[in-house]
Amino acid sequence: MTYDVATIRKDFPILSREVNGKPLVYLDNGASAQKPQAVIDAVTQAYSMEYSNVHRGLHYLSNLATENYEAVRGKLARFLGAGSEREIVFNSGTTEGINLVSYGWAAPRMEAGDEIVLSVMEHHANIVPWHFLRERQGVVLKWVDIDARGGLDPERVIDAIGPRTKLVAISHLSNVLGTKVDVKAIVEAAHAKGVPVLVDGSQSAVHHKVDVSDLGCDFYAITGHKLYGPSGSGAIYIRQERMDEMQPFMGGGDMIREVAKDHVSWNDPPMKFEAGTPGIVQTIGLGAAIDYMESLGMEAIAAHEDSLRDYAMERLGGLNWLNLQGTMPDKAAIFSFTLEGAAHAHDISTVLDKKGVAVRAGHHCAQPLMDHLGVPATCRASFGLYNTREEVDALVDALELCHELFA
Amino acid sequence: MTYDVATIRKDFPILSREVNGKPLVYLDNGASAQKPQAVIDAVTQAYSMEYSNVHRGLHYLSNLATENYEAVRGKLARFLGAGSEREIVFNSGTTEGINLVSYGWAAPRMEAGDEIVLSVMEHHANIVPWHFLRERQGVVLKWVDIDARGGLDPERVIDAIGPRTKLVAISHLSNVLGTKVDVKAIVEAAHAKGVPVLVDGSQSAVHHKVDVSDLGCDFYAITGHKLYGPSGSGAIYIRQERMDEMQPFMGGGDMIREVAKDHVSWNDPPMKFEAGTPGIVQTIGLGAAIDYMESLGMEAIAAHEDSLRDYAMERLGGLNWLNLQGTMPDKAAIFSFTLEGAAHAHDISTVLDKKGVAVRAGHHCAQPLMDHLGVPATCRASFGLYNTREEVDALVDALELCHELFA
Repeated sequence: MTYDVATIRKDFPILSREVNGKPLVYLDNGASAQKPQAVIDAVTQAYSMEYSNVHRGLHYLSNLATENYEAVRGKLARFLGAGSEREIVFNSGTTEGINLVSYGWAAPRMEAGDEIVLSVMEHHANIVPWHFLRERQGVVLKWVDIDARGGLDPERVIDAIGPRTKLVAISHLSNVLGTKVDVKAIVEAAHAKGVPVLVDGSQSAVHHKVDVSDLGCDFYAITGHKLYGPSGSGAIYIRQERMDEMQPFMGGGDMIREVAKDHVSWNDPPMKFEAGTPGIVQTIGLGAAIDYMESLGMEAIAAHEDSLRDYAMERLGGLNWLNLQGTMPDKAAIFSFTLEGAAHAHDISTVLDKKGVAVRAGHHCAQPLMDHLGVPATCRASFGLYNTREEVDALVDALELCHELFA
Repeated sequence: MTYDVATIRKDFPILSREVNGKPLVYLDNGASAQKPQAVIDAVTQAYSMEYSNVHRGLHYLSNLATENYEAVRGKLARFLGAGSEREIVFNSGTTEGINLVSYGWAAPRMEAGDEIVLSVMEHHANIVPWHFLRERQGVVLKWVDIDARGGLDPERVIDAIGPRTKLVAISHLSNVLGTKVDVKAIVEAAHAKGVPVLVDGSQSAVHHKVDVSDLGCDFYAITGHKLYGPSGSGAIYIRQERMDEMQPFMGGGDMIREVAKDHVSWNDPPMKFEAGTPGIVQTIGLGAAIDYMESLGMEAIAAHEDSLRDYAMERLGGLNWLNLQGTMPDKAAIFSFTLEGAAHAHDISTVLDKKGVAVRAGHHCAQPLMDHLGVPATCRASFGLYNTREEVDALVDALELCHELFA
């Protein structure tokens, strides 16, 4: 089966619309991806005909909704290569996932002077929860730099692991630079030193096949809305041993076994970490998104995006007034840039928007990286499974207009 | 405008379906409500034509999605009678809302021996977060009993407030008994003693008009999926003074002002308490649900449900083999019961289900109340704005069958 992007685009209703009188060129996938009709239909069907609360009912609709909802746990386990669906905790996305680890696993076991190793290109979701531990209990954050091309040498991460290191928290794929990180090498070395590894997979799981069993990591957080699924959906893989070590994070229904006036006991994992009525329909929609991606094939998606990356690299690389950040050859199709001696990133994105080209401008929730790069903000064009070479051309055309306007 | 329930029912696609070969009689609204077409359409429209991440973009779709999303903040402020939309924090529901208060406000200011006053009829969402404080920092939970009819005398709550009391945490409407609580009297007395009051409004906001300014409470938590809105939607009202006292809860994007390697500062409230990409489309759907409820009128909804309550009370009261829990005359249309010396609650619900009648059986996330009532579980029939007198009859018919089968 060939990867027919024109046909695939028809699955996404929003891609047929115009903005500002121009066809939409949606290159803001790093922030959030658009949804295929299959996901929208799954959400509609769930609300229209199959809706109820889950877990606590015995009536027909409750059983049906529970079945539809719980089926996604196994689907995500397979999608991520987890050994068991009991290692999948549902949540609202990577931010909640990493906060769960921070509150439930790290906070109870870390003392003043203990260290967390992370890179300068982490997303704030993989920084701020650790800053909490720094502020509240004296944990030390050890930052690892990237090189001039935006690469992260795993040896530098490994070298940063010292006797006080209790966790390595690292992105699998930079949301700003597109850099892929050799997580497997880091995990291997960290585990040899007895240090668990949390992987922020928010971007990575979107662009290529992830296998947590092969990576060997302890935590792997993903976000549904970037995976062509509903907003407010997500999950985190937690290796069984780590789960057994964790305290609950949020308290409420579903996560308890017994509640009395003077004592409380917990449900078994993963339910222990899922308090209250969950995002039922979002999770069902995320299941439909995973089905959709797998129907195209993760390898085919990756190959398509690699080809877009090469073409975009070639075209953008030809603009000698463009400062392109992140030039690793095997990077994902995510391009951050500024204009040589010219307009602010926000002005660039405004001009691009007039041409129908949606990119993001700002710090991309990665201010330490902006500091490292010495810029306050960049523009970012981030590609997804439905983008085309023609859209690369549209981006370049719009950038040339910017150059004319602002040079 | 008269309240035409037959017409209203047509707004809810699921109500036209059958289960087990019988027309669906959905009486599990206390667990979660069904969704009107207007909500489903708002969700579809958001994903199909107006989707993007919010807050961080400058392009057309991002501005549009942000506008649609942020408009709901003002809508909820009006719906709840808040003075300002800056006092509304979006979240995934009451559980997250109360955990926010527990982690962000209570935990940093409570010491061993400090007390939280709550009633025995609280939902686990308004118990377990306080148990965390008991377990982790020696906070004392002071429980207030209810009377034989399921009423909660505000004087008993007020009397329980002592010099070490730092918070009163109380439900506005019991999810098991339907009991309404005179929160205003409690707030007045608690404030006179300098004690803030958190109100669990998860059930209450569904059934009648809420006015937090009139109640005077400090925190008021609601859940979107019970309000005929999407799963995973919700909000909490937090009085400005309390917000100013709060630490952030979850860390990530959006809730920060600046992130560096060695320091971090926070965004202004309410954003300070909203980490990461929010439940964009769920929140937009919740806005549509609020619009829908207001188009019917909260007073009209309450009047309709009061009339259903009276009729159900009359019919159920006539079954002398039924143990009805909670008999306050002004209660909401929520009925918990067991069968005299007969079947387990789960068996009852299974028989009812065969007749198409969906009720919940279990502890309803209120185990301390079950202990108080001396039962392990009850059946609960909970009515919503689309239920009818005929559905009360269907419930009674099905219960009579249970009585025959099990007596």
